[in-house]
Amino acid sequence: MDIDDLAKRVIAGERRALARAITLVESGRADHRAEAARLIEAVGSAGREALRIGLSGTPGVGKSTFIEAFGMFLIERGLKVAVLAVDPSSARSGGSILGDKTRMERLAREKDAFIRPSPAQSQLGGVARRSREAVALCEAAGFDVVLIETVGVGQSETMVAGMADLFLLLIAPAGGDELQGVKRGIMEIADIILVNKADGALKDTATRTCSDYAGALRLLRKRPQDPDGYPRAMLVSALTQAGLPEAWEAMSALVEWRRSTGHWARNRAEQARHWFEEELRAGLLARLENDPSIRARVARLGEAVARGETSPTAAAGSVLASLDD
Amino acid sequence: MDIDDLAKRVIAGERRALARAITLVESGRADHRAEAARLIEAVGSAGREALRIGLSGTPGVGKSTFIEAFGMFLIERGLKVAVLAVDPSSARSGGSILGDKTRMERLAREKDAFIRPSPAQSQLGGVARRSREAVALCEAAGFDVVLIETVGVGQSETMVAGMADLFLLLIAPAGGDELQGVKRGIMEIADIILVNKADGALKDTATRTCSDYAGALRLLRKRPQDPDGYPRAMLVSALTQAGLPEAWEAMSALVEWRRSTGHWARNRAEQARHWFEEELRAGLLARLENDPSIRARVARLGEAVARGETSPTAAAGSVLASLDD
Repeated sequence: MDIDDLAKRVIAGERRALARAITLVESGRADHRAEAARLIEAVGSAGREALRIGLSGTPGVGKSTFIEAFGMFLIERGLKVAVLAVDPSSARSGGSILGDKTRMERLAREKDAFIRPSPAQSQLGGVARRSREAVALCEAAGFDVVLIETVGVGQSETMVAGMADLFLLLIAPAGGDELQGVKRGIMEIADIILVNKADGALKDTATRTCSDYAGALRLLRKRPQDPDGYPRAMLVSALTQAGLPEAWEAMSALVEWRRSTGHWARNRAEQARHWFEEELRAGLLARLENDPSIRARVARLGEAVARGETSPTAAAGSVLASLDD
Repeated sequence: MDIDDLAKRVIAGERRALARAITLVESGRADHRAEAARLIEAVGSAGREALRIGLSGTPGVGKSTFIEAFGMFLIERGLKVAVLAVDPSSARSGGSILGDKTRMERLAREKDAFIRPSPAQSQLGGVARRSREAVALCEAAGFDVVLIETVGVGQSETMVAGMADLFLLLIAPAGGDELQGVKRGIMEIADIILVNKADGALKDTATRTCSDYAGALRLLRKRPQDPDGYPRAMLVSALTQAGLPEAWEAMSALVEWRRSTGHWARNRAEQARHWFEEELRAGLLARLENDPSIRARVARLGEAVARGETSPTAAAGSVLASLDD
């Protein structure tokens, strides 16, 4: 494959080249990995920066409808929008989320939109790298906004937050004492909580839910990267599009503040450094695991440690000592 | 040093031997590390298990007063109590938390109590290992309850939760809209939130604060390790000791439920396995960093990645490739 040519065509904004490039970074084959690394390095020369928005919400909150409405809203304002789905659980179901595109029919037809469902995946570490590289490709292809959608499963939100400039949590309205099913830890990373379905019969419930979350957010300590009034809870309706302009305004104000105070650049630099260290750690462990006898030893000692037969320190020391043999 | 003899004396419950053993695991010297590993392995033979309670709270919530009151409460019930302080920030202040013992005057005089202030420390990874080993030593010495106290700084709570059977968060009463200063993410790990100072003029405020937190906890999804009604928010007064019996009852009921359902054992096994993997990763990175030329290369590439000059993947690949030379 001519990687330099592919990089050029991605940067030129060729949609088919972008799709092919993402397929390449999604591949687990060793030769593809090497080509993918060269491709990512090559498209970096474009020096483009999109607004990367992480978005999470449990099934049923209307995520696809929201993305379709929000995506159309952005396109009407002259922006190009890419939508990437990150779903570590799809490894179990064995393939891409069916219907992602059909559930976003209008957006999928727009020439300024690019929708990529999540591929079949094997493990979270791999998902992280592939998603991060897919974001970089969309950025190089000239998209202004990259929406990274994830389902509220396991550590996927933390992972997506680690590659996003801001993070949205979509919530459904729910009455008083009902459990909202917000994963613990998500409040830590959400910049804006959007209570969806603030329309029709659910409007009052949505308003109450929104003020519940606003109250809960006030109980949390302010992070350095938050200006006054953030993180905040807001009402939207993907159906009537009510609240979308206000939500976009809140995002834009947050981004502007973070840019002017240096938090944006610092966050990007920290994210890059973090991914470097992750890649290094993963690579070191992979080197260990490539040796079948060491791999077996690590697995055996892990079991012994879990059963309390030996201490973590002694077990790790024994593996490390065996590397010097 | 005769490690076997030291181990025997720790298991016999000799207080001076325990103090000396903890000093040994706190040492960063390589020969001490090797002895510490042997010691931990040796005391493991005692097969004792304490209730490990993590406790966090920002300065000013009355942590020391609470520990003194709660410690005395447990001792009056015939239990032996060890208190360990974990303070990663003390590296900056250059030494142990002054006054830890003087602030717990009564408890410090009890023969069934053992209080260990946090030592001068250099980095969080080291703090984690040393604290974990100090907990194991207290357990082997026959303490029934090991209280692991931490200040709400950085990732110390997550670390302490990773070595505790249950986690308490101590909160001060605060009026309506006041920021409570609860670190984001802490709600994720707290099993019981204790609103302290529920006495005198603050009693009403404490009651309102408690119900605010109870409401916020209801917004979070239930974890598998939580029976009905947990995590919960409760009122205590370290001053009048009001609420201590109820808090202890809530802890005991939680522990009993987790033991009978297997969550306790599973949690301990997972923690042990996690520490093994952490030790292994840390050891692998340390091997890298022991080579000055590789260390310099990693630092240089980390900067280049943060500046956006190269991609995380390419930088990590270049370090890993150089290991094969």
